[in-house]
Amino acid sequence: MKLCSFIHNGTASYGLVTEAGIVDLGKRFAEATLRNFLAAGDLSRASALAGEPADYAFDAVTHAPVIPNPDKIICVGLNYHAHIEETGREETPNPVLFARYAGSQIGHDEALIKPLESDEFDYEGEVAVIIGKEGRRISEADALDYVAGYACYNDGSVRDWQKHTHQFMPGKTFAGTGAFGPWMVTADEIPDPTKMHLQTRLNGQVVQDTDVSMLVTSIPRLIAYCSTILPLLPGDVIVSGTPGGVGARRTPQLWMRDGDICEVEVSGIGILSNPVRNEG
Amino acid sequence: MKLCSFIHNGTASYGLVTEAGIVDLGKRFAEATLRNFLAAGDLSRASALAGEPADYAFDAVTHAPVIPNPDKIICVGLNYHAHIEETGREETPNPVLFARYAGSQIGHDEALIKPLESDEFDYEGEVAVIIGKEGRRISEADALDYVAGYACYNDGSVRDWQKHTHQFMPGKTFAGTGAFGPWMVTADEIPDPTKMHLQTRLNGQVVQDTDVSMLVTSIPRLIAYCSTILPLLPGDVIVSGTPGGVGARRTPQLWMRDGDICEVEVSGIGILSNPVRNEG
Repeated sequence: MKLCSFIHNGTASYGLVTEAGIVDLGKRFAEATLRNFLAAGDLSRASALAGEPADYAFDAVTHAPVIPNPDKIICVGLNYHAHIEETGREETPNPVLFARYAGSQIGHDEALIKPLESDEFDYEGEVAVIIGKEGRRISEADALDYVAGYACYNDGSVRDWQKHTHQFMPGKTFAGTGAFGPWMVTADEIPDPTKMHLQTRLNGQVVQDTDVSMLVTSIPRLIAYCSTILPLLPGDVIVSGTPGGVGARRTPQLWMRDGDICEVEVSGIGILSNPVRNEG
Repeated sequence: MKLCSFIHNGTASYGLVTEAGIVDLGKRFAEATLRNFLAAGDLSRASALAGEPADYAFDAVTHAPVIPNPDKIICVGLNYHAHIEETGREETPNPVLFARYAGSQIGHDEALIKPLESDEFDYEGEVAVIIGKEGRRISEADALDYVAGYACYNDGSVRDWQKHTHQFMPGKTFAGTGAFGPWMVTADEIPDPTKMHLQTRLNGQVVQDTDVSMLVTSIPRLIAYCSTILPLLPGDVIVSGTPGGVGARRTPQLWMRDGDICEVEVSGIGILSNPVRNEG
């Protein structure tokens, strides 16, 4: 089952994505957001509507980030060997975590915004893990039971601001730089996330390509580690890390520019596509 | 004027703090939270009630973080020369920023929680800046116009987890480690934040003591820098950095332990006091 968030006629809602389009769940259920719908726990209310006629064609809405308002977006850095090698850093026994703020996110087909302050705007294709139920100190063995689903994420990075100091966050949360979509696929359809394949394309050219099995810290271990720190809540997002091939580490460097199209494809999920626009 | 958030008889609310106690604003106004009350913009609705009888004694409520649900908590590292020196790090031309998640916060008099996983639980007394109106790319000259007020903050740090990797965030957002209170004092009473004095005491012993004028990156410059990245919103919190004297850099090291009392006092604001408790 595919679930998305969107805006139609100025109203924010969320829906079930079918072959025919979007079945609007926000107008059928009391929960105002997909985050709240996940928290309520009974996803069968959505799957039961799979035969309903679509309310809108998928392209007739403005796509929002899959979860527009997560309590937490936890980003993982340096989590594929090929990316660690290209940065010249060393592998750490624990995951490298930093935050993105929710207000920096955009949906599918919306523009990734190259900010006025930088020309070093880089792509980072990633798998986003969306939490389905609250938990603290979740064991690795139980971790996948806490996953509501998976989506594509483009963790757009402003590299010079990321390197202003040793802490990455400023370059990782500019407005309009975190693309999250096009929908989430529920975890029942992805019983083993290591089987996914991740590819990033810039203007059709493959720039990142990896099996998700190559993650240094696995998705279950990320969930165990993060939930040791504080409770994970429904709708929380763990953005699990980018593979090798980022633009900053190429020769010559490859930056996203106005008019580019950046796609992140994850097998079993779909394609997140975003145009790039200069701000202003 | 002093504004606080609290829980009374199981109901979350916010109020005006007077000599007599708390005037409950949540039951008088439509806005459900202090964040929403700040966003509405008209603080004179609160100050007009200064002569009202208190609804509760200040100590008769459970204190919540001043803003329990900020959109963003932006923490600043290494922002006093004496703290930079004791860590052996170098000064950076731009501020060192990382995040804390809202769910890690506690209010005045509530227990700071030493997590099961660590014995290296450290205090960090700081001045919290609370944003009053939305802005992007705010100039330094205009920055103080965007401040709703100031509060005391204890940015409790789990040092071994902070040092798991080069990114600080895991050690900076454990559940129950960010104390924020006892109230905010509105900016009209603090026209020049550099005039404040900050002191941290552990069991009555002064462990940190500085003039806020010693900040490396000033509060106006922090607001300008952060708002370049993405819009600041009413209720956002910038935790402006800790001075020298942290427990991790003492010989011998000084950690917070079960039964300790940690106080952060800022002149013109008041005293944030929290007991320390082992988790579980």
